[in-house]
Amino acid sequence: MLAPGHRLALRCGRGWLLLLLLLGCGLAREAGSVLNCPPRCLCASNIISCSKLGLGIIPTQLPRFTAILDLSHNNLTRLRADWTPARLPHLHSLLLSHNALGFISTEAFCHVPHLRYLDLSSNSLKALEEFLFSQLQELEVLLLYNNQIAQMDRSAFDDMARLQKLYLSQNQISRFPVELVKDRAKLPDLALLDLSANKIKGLPVTALKGLPAWMKNGLYLHSNPLNCDCGLYELFAHWHARQLSSVVDFREELVCSLPQAKRSVSVFTLNRHDSLNCSEFKEHMLETYLGDTVTIDCDTKVRGATTREWVTPTNRRFPEESANSTMTVLGNGSLQIRPIRVEDMGTYTCYAVSQAFNETLYVDVMVHNFTQHGPHDTLNTAYTTLVGCILSVILVLIYLYLTPCRCCCRSNEKLAAPPEDSINSSMLSTTPNHNPEAGGRKGSLSHLAASGPMQGQNGKVKPNSTPEQVARRAQKAHRKVSDPDSVSSVFSDTPIVV
Amino acid sequence: MLAPGHRLALRCGRGWLLLLLLLGCGLAREAGSVLNCPPRCLCASNIISCSKLGLGIIPTQLPRFTAILDLSHNNLTRLRADWTPARLPHLHSLLLSHNALGFISTEAFCHVPHLRYLDLSSNSLKALEEFLFSQLQELEVLLLYNNQIAQMDRSAFDDMARLQKLYLSQNQISRFPVELVKDRAKLPDLALLDLSANKIKGLPVTALKGLPAWMKNGLYLHSNPLNCDCGLYELFAHWHARQLSSVVDFREELVCSLPQAKRSVSVFTLNRHDSLNCSEFKEHMLETYLGDTVTIDCDTKVRGATTREWVTPTNRRFPEESANSTMTVLGNGSLQIRPIRVEDMGTYTCYAVSQAFNETLYVDVMVHNFTQHGPHDTLNTAYTTLVGCILSVILVLIYLYLTPCRCCCRSNEKLAAPPEDSINSSMLSTTPNHNPEAGGRKGSLSHLAASGPMQGQNGKVKPNSTPEQVARRAQKAHRKVSDPDSVSSVFSDTPIVV
Repeated sequence: MLAPGHRLALRCGRGWLLLLLLLGCGLAREAGSVLNCPPRCLCASNIISCSKLGLGIIPTQLPRFTAILDLSHNNLTRLRADWTPARLPHLHSLLLSHNALGFISTEAFCHVPHLRYLDLSSNSLKALEEFLFSQLQELEVLLLYNNQIAQMDRSAFDDMARLQKLYLSQNQISRFPVELVKDRAKLPDLALLDLSANKIKGLPVTALKGLPAWMKNGLYLHSNPLNCDCGLYELFAHWHARQLSSVVDFREELVCSLPQAKRSVSVFTLNRHDSLNCSEFKEHMLETYLGDTVTIDCDTKVRGATTREWVTPTNRRFPEESANSTMTVLGNGSLQIRPIRVEDMGTYTCYAVSQAFNETLYVDVMVHNFTQHGPHDTLNTAYTTLVGCILSVILVLIYLYLTPCRCCCRSNEKLAAPPEDSINSSMLSTTPNHNPEAGGRKGSLSHLAASGPMQGQNGKVKPNSTPEQVARRAQKAHRKVSDPDSVSSVFSDTPIVV
Repeated sequence: MLAPGHRLALRCGRGWLLLLLLLGCGLAREAGSVLNCPPRCLCASNIISCSKLGLGIIPTQLPRFTAILDLSHNNLTRLRADWTPARLPHLHSLLLSHNALGFISTEAFCHVPHLRYLDLSSNSLKALEEFLFSQLQELEVLLLYNNQIAQMDRSAFDDMARLQKLYLSQNQISRFPVELVKDRAKLPDLALLDLSANKIKGLPVTALKGLPAWMKNGLYLHSNPLNCDCGLYELFAHWHARQLSSVVDFREELVCSLPQAKRSVSVFTLNRHDSLNCSEFKEHMLETYLGDTVTIDCDTKVRGATTREWVTPTNRRFPEESANSTMTVLGNGSLQIRPIRVEDMGTYTCYAVSQAFNETLYVDVMVHNFTQHGPHDTLNTAYTTLVGCILSVILVLIYLYLTPCRCCCRSNEKLAAPPEDSINSSMLSTTPNHNPEAGGRKGSLSHLAASGPMQGQNGKVKPNSTPEQVARRAQKAHRKVSDPDSVSSVFSDTPIVV
């Protein structure tokens, strides 16, 4: 497998050689500062607009400074590798919608490396070849809706590290392109994927469930001939409960086909169909066990929203009241409870802010009144070690003090005093002799023997002091949008620039 | 004068009242989640494309979630206040190019407060009324090229704090709208202003000279019937020397009319016309005077470029070698020399980096071998004060020690010693008596009288120690672009998003 950089160099290298040989003259002429507005086009500084001119071929000799090139509403059929003889390093928007493009060369974008917006909608594309768009490493928006795309190579969108929005609506796609969402490192910025009005029948429900809310919010799947099942119902019912745009805005277009019936039904009515027997959807609680370390995510609809505040069931606010608490707000905005107690059970509220709008998220947390490993857990390693230690100490002391005849035979000998003193001093390191009673009971074992096991018992009745550390993710949550009029479009915070 | 917020509230408030009364029913219906793709339009999730449909009126009942609305290539003649009955809070791009719009209501944009891109190019607009676009406080790009605009109210673009690009090419504008560039606080982000192909005859040369390079780089003025004069020649010759896109890319379209001749000539040939007698353009040096505090700006072509390094004529690098130097790089990237010396004269090089490309800027600095106020400056306040002080001390000492008869009459009296000692100790605060010679010459005036003025002379022969603090701006500079193939379009670092 070649690295992206190598792939691009190989792919575009061939084109460059050809161009250097064939078009040296053209390049030299173009490099001047002459404004070269193509005939019949409209030119305003760095904008070249050749829209609706009935063009069959793309004008050559485009000015090097072109930033926006509008070729929409023409009769273009092919986008060849040499559509622009010279490199257009400033071009950031290329509009080719409403043409008859059926072919795009895999080297078509070698000369426009800084393209950020590419509109290929309303054309006649049928297939997307491997690495077709891989040269467009700065592309942010790609419009491919209203074509006839039936085949998409899995690598067509490889190396598009900055792609944010991909519109594939109204095509003939029958397979959900799970590779676009599964490996988040591949298209890390993708926040809108429109696959509506295609021919997709099955969805990778488990993979979709695991996506962050900001990704699901921009994943449009309506108007597809989906097969009805309870997994589908649960998926979309959950998205609807979270008020995700992709489902709320197109609720009536989210339909599926029942196995036996030939008609389409709304996904949200599946629980009412006897044939499927789906149970009524209920947002799940986050279930935890006593003493666990629990992390509750603030899984917001807008990417990069900042967690402003968490409010607990007892109305404590974090990170405001973080001092001396079992709860802390982590760097990513999640709330960590360590260890969780029964009284921590209830609804947690996360207030998040982004450039576009404010969001309020509720998470119900349930705490089982026992640890995850059951009641046997009290006999844990720490406890048994402690008991073992104390028993060893008792045995040593018995050996030292209760050896038969030593104490009684030599009780009156003055020479015996120094060794007793030295032993006593070592004992004092655990039982200090500033207690006058203990100081007067040298050699008495009862005090020491009793105090050891008592500490052990104390350890047992406080299971909180030896918790199991289990991190849990709070992915089952429901939310309400606080300001219904505010902007919630995906990436609405990023500016458009021509 | 009303504040922007008030103006907007008043302006849009009337519209709301009307709408609430007339269209309550429509609003209620629209608020649902039904996809309401207008007839014949093409809808892909949040994109509504109604391009080239021969529409005479804008479809009503647009979905609330619309982000992009394309109405280009239709027959629209008016953009009324109620063109959208409901608020479209997610709309960020409105495309109305290639219509026949001759009227835009001053309340037309009340319902689209988050618009960032507005294309009104290729219409029939004749005038821009006061505060016409003032509701669009988030607009970044406004395309008005290829209309018939002859009148623009000075307040038409007020309150557009985020406007970055304004295309006014190919209209009938005869006055340079100096208000758009003069007060930088009004349109602080404006980096591209296209006024090419209008009817502008005169330019405010002084105001334009004072603009930062990144602003001049995007100020397109070609293809206007400018009147030739030497000021115009110097302005554009300087822009050309600095390789600014607005001049380099349209060098041949930068023409002007000679007073007597009826033909247009290139602005860059004006120095060759006898009738004007313009002197050959030469980039000026930054002239400074010995001891001045000089600030050399790194006036880059791209806004927000970061100064990476300054290299001095003696090849010292800053901020790398800032320690123990008279030179420091300020927070804004400028190089400050404090005080400047004759050996600091020469060419300074600034290397700047931005997201788009790297830039190298050269500034020639000349240092005159005298201070700005001439040789008289040595007789300054500090020097005269010092001399005055010393004279006072001498007079006091004469009074104390040289009063006639006191020393000779009482030279042998032992009681006189203590007062002499105390006076001597106060003298020692300026002339310490660890000098054995001085210590042995109690009461001698010659040493003190000589040492005072000597210090004064030292102050005189070192004029550097008392410099005049005069800050200077290095606005006369020339540059070279280090990477000719790199992107240099204005604000090319800001992403496009649909």
